[in-house]
Amino acid sequence: MIQMGTVHGVGLGPGAQDLLSVRADRLVRGARHLAYFRKAGRPGQARRIVEGMLREDVVEYAMEYPVTTEIPFADPRYNASLSRFYASATEHLVGLARAGEDVVVLCEGDPFFYGSFMHIYTRLAGSVPVGVVPGITGMSGAWTACGAPMTWGDDVLTILTATLPEEELTRRIRDTDALVVMKIGRNLAKLRRAVLAAGRESEAWLVEHAAMAEQRVTPLGEAEGVTPYFSILLIHGQGRRP
Amino acid sequence: MIQMGTVHGVGLGPGAQDLLSVRADRLVRGARHLAYFRKAGRPGQARRIVEGMLREDVVEYAMEYPVTTEIPFADPRYNASLSRFYASATEHLVGLARAGEDVVVLCEGDPFFYGSFMHIYTRLAGSVPVGVVPGITGMSGAWTACGAPMTWGDDVLTILTATLPEEELTRRIRDTDALVVMKIGRNLAKLRRAVLAAGRESEAWLVEHAAMAEQRVTPLGEAEGVTPYFSILLIHGQGRRP
Repeated sequence: MIQMGTVHGVGLGPGAQDLLSVRADRLVRGARHLAYFRKAGRPGQARRIVEGMLREDVVEYAMEYPVTTEIPFADPRYNASLSRFYASATEHLVGLARAGEDVVVLCEGDPFFYGSFMHIYTRLAGSVPVGVVPGITGMSGAWTACGAPMTWGDDVLTILTATLPEEELTRRIRDTDALVVMKIGRNLAKLRRAVLAAGRESEAWLVEHAAMAEQRVTPLGEAEGVTPYFSILLIHGQGRRP
Repeated sequence: MIQMGTVHGVGLGPGAQDLLSVRADRLVRGARHLAYFRKAGRPGQARRIVEGMLREDVVEYAMEYPVTTEIPFADPRYNASLSRFYASATEHLVGLARAGEDVVVLCEGDPFFYGSFMHIYTRLAGSVPVGVVPGITGMSGAWTACGAPMTWGDDVLTILTATLPEEELTRRIRDTDALVVMKIGRNLAKLRRAVLAAGRESEAWLVEHAAMAEQRVTPLGEAEGVTPYFSILLIHGQGRRP
């Protein structure tokens, strides 16, 4: 009987190759089977991070999202299509593990923090051995890029996605010390209105491509030219400090 | 003229040696001068993590907190004493850097996320070159230990310290999807009352010593025997998922 392989969800961190953990670095360099998510027709950010680190005989499995922005979230076809996609990707990974192969699934940032791997992870439950390697989050990369400490003393840190309704964004941005907003994408104009309505525009920073060569930090008030992809909004806490 | 050395604040991650980033691993192994915080009379958690990784000729500088729990936060002597302590530690590090020596300052988790290094960092500003290496946060270690994804879709994640007043803890625990509570220490009983009052006790987990050999995950309802040091409380988000 073949011993089953393990599916490893491996956090890659914010984008710099030397910000992989030592454990993640070993798994990625040793991987015979490598899987990662990407938009159809794009190289994929996770795959870009590990460029040059892979075995010559690596077998790659690109999991291409069937829909991203074409169908609105609220449309039931959006969920149905994604659900079929995750089920089919999971089936492929289970097949490899049952054949005795270990598989490394690349995850930007940390696998359990707003990651696509979570949809695979819950579907794998119990079927094959699974390992998860935490990673440095994109937001840690972003606040490091800003060069300013994020949370002091008993500061409250709220993490939001810009996909929330504008009123809810405003209420929560007003009611926190420190703030991180993820998934900005096409919601930048809405997010900016919410930050302004909360009276906090002068404290807010946009960080693009944290920890990568293209890294850029911009005050939100000067955000006209900012490409919102891979960008994170931050407000730093100002709490108790001796 | 001597070229100035750099003071590196290096995130070590949650506690396992192979969860240091590759960049942090290199800096720690290469360090001739190493500094870290600890309670007087204790080895210190940061120093424990790097045991066995250091150069034979490493010069260690233990920065021992003058007060931790003996004086209440509200007492002005608490701030004055800590402020003198950070100023004196900073002066020592500046001295080394001005003499041309690089110094690695060990930071549990991520340096800019509730870290003591931030008090040095702000005091160093402009005087000598400074580098910051982000790390995997203790909370990432904790949610990985739980084996369950933390935030889905547009889940709101709130990060609190258990040092906040009970009413504020209750209000904020009620008003979030996912939750992390840090700095539990002697505040466990208060925190538990707040989680109960928010109606969320059955969702809450306590994680001790995440990513270390002594790692333990306990439902909050069974927390009688839990040592609160190095422990983090989590409630997982249950948001949108296809």
